[in-house]
Amino acid sequence: MPRYKVTLSYDGSNYGGWQKQMNTHSIQEEIERTLERIVKEPVSIHASGRTDAGVHALAQVFHFDSNKNLSNENWKRALNSLLPKDIRIQQVETVSDTFHARFDAAGKRYDYLISEDVLNPFYERYMAKDRAHLDVAYMQECANVFIGTHDFTSFTSSKLDPRKPRIKTIHRLEVRKEKHAVRLIFEGNGFLRYMVRMISQTLIEAGKHKLTKEDIMQMLEAKDKHVCRYKADAQGLYLVKVNYKNQEE
Amino acid sequence: MPRYKVTLSYDGSNYGGWQKQMNTHSIQEEIERTLERIVKEPVSIHASGRTDAGVHALAQVFHFDSNKNLSNENWKRALNSLLPKDIRIQQVETVSDTFHARFDAAGKRYDYLISEDVLNPFYERYMAKDRAHLDVAYMQECANVFIGTHDFTSFTSSKLDPRKPRIKTIHRLEVRKEKHAVRLIFEGNGFLRYMVRMISQTLIEAGKHKLTKEDIMQMLEAKDKHVCRYKADAQGLYLVKVNYKNQEE
Repeated sequence: MPRYKVTLSYDGSNYGGWQKQMNTHSIQEEIERTLERIVKEPVSIHASGRTDAGVHALAQVFHFDSNKNLSNENWKRALNSLLPKDIRIQQVETVSDTFHARFDAAGKRYDYLISEDVLNPFYERYMAKDRAHLDVAYMQECANVFIGTHDFTSFTSSKLDPRKPRIKTIHRLEVRKEKHAVRLIFEGNGFLRYMVRMISQTLIEAGKHKLTKEDIMQMLEAKDKHVCRYKADAQGLYLVKVNYKNQEE
Repeated sequence: MPRYKVTLSYDGSNYGGWQKQMNTHSIQEEIERTLERIVKEPVSIHASGRTDAGVHALAQVFHFDSNKNLSNENWKRALNSLLPKDIRIQQVETVSDTFHARFDAAGKRYDYLISEDVLNPFYERYMAKDRAHLDVAYMQECANVFIGTHDFTSFTSSKLDPRKPRIKTIHRLEVRKEKHAVRLIFEGNGFLRYMVRMISQTLIEAGKHKLTKEDIMQMLEAKDKHVCRYKADAQGLYLVKVNYKNQEE
């Protein structure tokens, strides 16, 4: 059965996250229901990973299988005509039937946006807000602590399955002052649950001089799931890119 | 009783417009209810004018009267702490009790935003979208037709009260190509119902070469409420500024 790789953007504001679950409206469910309307039978989709409630994506990736004879362009058109406007399919590609959106993901980029303009109602769903002026140079100094390969137990959900490996590599963690926001850019081979949001809020606290670089080094070295009390709000987080092996960049 | 002038921004996405009405959630209602919570008695507010469902404001203005003894800064703080986050008070000023937000308004600026990026889910509530490439230079040429003092009967709601004067002056109508949008800037002494959206869609049609400058001149000269079938979507429209007499700019 032909396999398709789909790249999509979504505004996560109106969803309880990517993953299908009881009592909440999910992006996965919305897409599976739409595919079912097109192919007239149930279809399962497999994403590169979940995103939490309120988190956005510029280029999430999922795959699905179907015998329905549609060109890539017509899959895209059919999906976009039936999906809600806050979910937009960017690209549909035919891939080998061994491709897997999650297992083949070699790396990801997440961006986290923070605004100092607390009175701007248009940032409400799209940026974290902080009234304090953030010391961006010091945030970058602290961000450098996380670059490299580390056990990130201190910066993930305390409910994470204890058998799951906690060692991840962050290749890039950049703190950038932009016109309307401070942008944190995370690139790595993979991220644990809440890891980007917990590191982001830790860096925000450092930007307000409520944490030092030494505090942060100790937190990371502690490898203790109770040591970090910080987690930045979901609406500032964007899944920007998923990289796959053998992918030309 | 002291009178206050309030300047506020709102994301109009979740509201049925400014004005209180049956069966819909309005911005006016939200603010009046919040003021009632603060002063413990009903308060009426008076805006510079209505905005329709889905229309946004960067700086709408209203006034209200109250004997409650609060500083301007504390009014602002109290309102922002109780209002939903998509309505943000920017400024509260004490004004003379002869000030009237609507009758004293000497002019307004509205901006209309159009994006060619139809696959961007983040523009959904904030810009009109058009797949066509817009000829911005020709749009400006057509926009110049509207500058000056005209009877705008052709570019307003056909249900407008026939006794209402239709003669308005547009001082500025600029068509600007920006990075993510085409922006139309309207400045004038006042705008009739739907006038900005009807002119905007007329200019979009011109930008797609579906209307000529001559067509538009004829439409304006016709002074016929049935001649313009175009009305741009609400979500691209922003009330940017209300000017008052004796105001330093």
